[in-house]
Amino acid sequence: MYDIIIIGAGTAGISAYKQAIKKTKNILMINEGPWDTTCARVGCMPSKVLISTANRMHDIQHAENVSLITQATIDTSKVMQHVHDLRDRFTRATLKDVESWDPQHKISGRATFIDKNTVLVNGNKYQAKSFIIAVGSKPAVNPKWKETLKDKLITSDEVFELETLPKSLAIVGSGVIAIELAQAMQRLGVETTVFARSRKIGSLSSPQLQVLAQNLISKELHIKFEILPDEVRRDGPSVSITYTEDHQQKNLKVDYLLLATGRTTHLGNLNLKNIDSSFEDVESLPINKQTKQLSDLPIFIVGDAFTNTPIQHEAAHEGKLAVNNCLNYPEVKNLKTLTPLGIMFSSPEMATVGQSYKQLKEQNIKFITGLVHYEKQGRAIVLGKNKGAIELYVDINTRKLLGAELLVESAEHLAHLLSWMISEELRIDDILQKPFYHPTLEEGIRTALKHARRQLDTIG
Amino acid sequence: MYDIIIIGAGTAGISAYKQAIKKTKNILMINEGPWDTTCARVGCMPSKVLISTANRMHDIQHAENVSLITQATIDTSKVMQHVHDLRDRFTRATLKDVESWDPQHKISGRATFIDKNTVLVNGNKYQAKSFIIAVGSKPAVNPKWKETLKDKLITSDEVFELETLPKSLAIVGSGVIAIELAQAMQRLGVETTVFARSRKIGSLSSPQLQVLAQNLISKELHIKFEILPDEVRRDGPSVSITYTEDHQQKNLKVDYLLLATGRTTHLGNLNLKNIDSSFEDVESLPINKQTKQLSDLPIFIVGDAFTNTPIQHEAAHEGKLAVNNCLNYPEVKNLKTLTPLGIMFSSPEMATVGQSYKQLKEQNIKFITGLVHYEKQGRAIVLGKNKGAIELYVDINTRKLLGAELLVESAEHLAHLLSWMISEELRIDDILQKPFYHPTLEEGIRTALKHARRQLDTIG
Repeated sequence: MYDIIIIGAGTAGISAYKQAIKKTKNILMINEGPWDTTCARVGCMPSKVLISTANRMHDIQHAENVSLITQATIDTSKVMQHVHDLRDRFTRATLKDVESWDPQHKISGRATFIDKNTVLVNGNKYQAKSFIIAVGSKPAVNPKWKETLKDKLITSDEVFELETLPKSLAIVGSGVIAIELAQAMQRLGVETTVFARSRKIGSLSSPQLQVLAQNLISKELHIKFEILPDEVRRDGPSVSITYTEDHQQKNLKVDYLLLATGRTTHLGNLNLKNIDSSFEDVESLPINKQTKQLSDLPIFIVGDAFTNTPIQHEAAHEGKLAVNNCLNYPEVKNLKTLTPLGIMFSSPEMATVGQSYKQLKEQNIKFITGLVHYEKQGRAIVLGKNKGAIELYVDINTRKLLGAELLVESAEHLAHLLSWMISEELRIDDILQKPFYHPTLEEGIRTALKHARRQLDTIG
Repeated sequence: MYDIIIIGAGTAGISAYKQAIKKTKNILMINEGPWDTTCARVGCMPSKVLISTANRMHDIQHAENVSLITQATIDTSKVMQHVHDLRDRFTRATLKDVESWDPQHKISGRATFIDKNTVLVNGNKYQAKSFIIAVGSKPAVNPKWKETLKDKLITSDEVFELETLPKSLAIVGSGVIAIELAQAMQRLGVETTVFARSRKIGSLSSPQLQVLAQNLISKELHIKFEILPDEVRRDGPSVSITYTEDHQQKNLKVDYLLLATGRTTHLGNLNLKNIDSSFEDVESLPINKQTKQLSDLPIFIVGDAFTNTPIQHEAAHEGKLAVNNCLNYPEVKNLKTLTPLGIMFSSPEMATVGQSYKQLKEQNIKFITGLVHYEKQGRAIVLGKNKGAIELYVDINTRKLLGAELLVESAEHLAHLLSWMISEELRIDDILQKPFYHPTLEEGIRTALKHARRQLDTIG
């Protein structure tokens, strides 16, 4: 009987293994499919490569912002070769890591539970005192559409496999992955149309920033808000999409239809119902959000397999911390949660740190909003990227920074700064004592902090 | 008799005025020359505009890094028009601010001291209980060379005035301003040669990072290390420079010679010797570095007029805090110092935060260095900017982060993050508990923190 069996060798599983091996050699990793991560193969990394090239293209085409005249041509097979090259480099790094592990610790195949201590893999039984389940998720697919469109319906699992970029593309969805991909494709010369169920795009919950984001991103990207396809069908090599707009039936013909409407957990593959018949419906499993424990069992479910917000660094964090709960079972502790930090690599980038506007409202927390617009911000003007805004949410009583939402160039950096400040539980008065170099985008944060302080001083 | 007379309406003086006006209306500002700031007119801002355009040009010409093929042409009169337009926009903002002040509070002209409470301006005497001196500095000029070269010898005061960019340029100096300008000019197609007294370039004090910086920046910029011109003379419309290299006398012909060999204080204009004859030599005034007080007088000298490291946000900070010392005189307090944060907008950017390598060595503080190279850093590879490194300096006993030196893309952002952590006096173990989003350049900081931790754990 193993001390721990880890199911799934993605980000969370690998992180769990690396932590577990420090404590016990009596462990087993079971993995179905490739021994690398969603992140490196079909997630964060290839998407960032595509976005990086797309943004460079955009910077070239809009160099008049900084007084240059330019021309660029895209060889889209070269772009996709570049995506493949770097993706392979990143997956190789992960695989090399896994290859260094004791071969006795690794089995390829699908694990299904027989009882709470036993799984079946390729016809063999394996037993453990505890399990870490890190099976991840896959993009949701409309099965009818898939049957109709076959290889012309793609998701983030397939898009990075393309040899060249299509001439035209429709994307269903307006969340993080949908908008990141849509904007990149459009910037790379792919005629891209987005069908969005609602008006919300990306990750921001602030109504004001949402409107700003919708306006900014719509300027360069064709988004059909509150419209979904009525019907899709193949038309020779193309996809024909019928939809209703302004009470009229319309048609759009594109090379591919890309679905980015969320992700589905792989938990359904595990036959958890053999442990408890109530586990049949994997969408409503009794998983403790703080401990990640399944019911009162020595089973912990981490990473994308059970989350609404798949974020790589949180998956790694959960995988690592679940090991202690496995080894100390039945003594189970809350996993120490990280200060929330979510980044979307759109242009401008979006980010949410600490508590979002929506979360604060839902909890009826009394806060004021410090706002800065970047249209007239010095450093942003110099860079030719003076767009967007930041909202800081400040507790009225404690004057502490509770959260922030960002829609701005380099939000990836400003979001780290703000989330680290939030984790130190600093008051805005303390943050205003920090050095702000001139000229930087960070000075915009100071503007927002001062805006918040003026409001607090008026109230106080 | 005024409560405070402020001499000099630059960044430090304006900041002092804005703070003083909250406490007393009985103040006077005396300013010689334009009522805007070195920063906005001939410093941070126009240089950042030129650098921004230069970096965009570089990104266009090296778009093969991200698999694109491109072409760009430079209309250098357009580039300089862009520099002028934005510079004017930034100086207008400052002027507008100053114009809103009570006209009775402002006099144009040179102030010279008659005694410790009295200055003479345009033949009139003005008296105050205390003075804030914020007269700033100007680029050092070799007077012989100036006489010989006339308008072909320029400094940062003149370079942004050019209508078009020269075809060729020699720069003497290898400090922050010299390298920022040289790299920008080279990237904008100006054939640029740098004469450097030493091997040191830019702001970094770490020997390892210096070598890396010299190698990286030399790749695109012709730097003659440890060589200064022997003689300069005019040759028709050109400048002819004679210098000795490899024991041979050589000659270089360029359109302009730009001096960036440091800055000279304007304190010499003030006739301080009328207060005390020992104040004749303004280079060795008895100024307290903590309080900025001149001797035991009610005179405080702030900003670039008295500093080795002219940094805009520190000038503003000093101007603001000196007001309290004026009003409370003779009770004088140390100005609260900000966590050091210096950024150089080269490519890669350089930054120094907290205590530098050199400062720590000079104080014999026991520290270890956490190092990360960015050649193989995921996010840097994705951006096509995988160069440089970061060193973190960690106290061996307390495990606190003491300082850092950076040579990396987006150092301007990473430096804020690190300096704010240093100001919170965090141990590296605390910083490792922060969220690091994937994939970001911030993950490189985690690598360096872990490198430091491994060393500490080995020692400990």
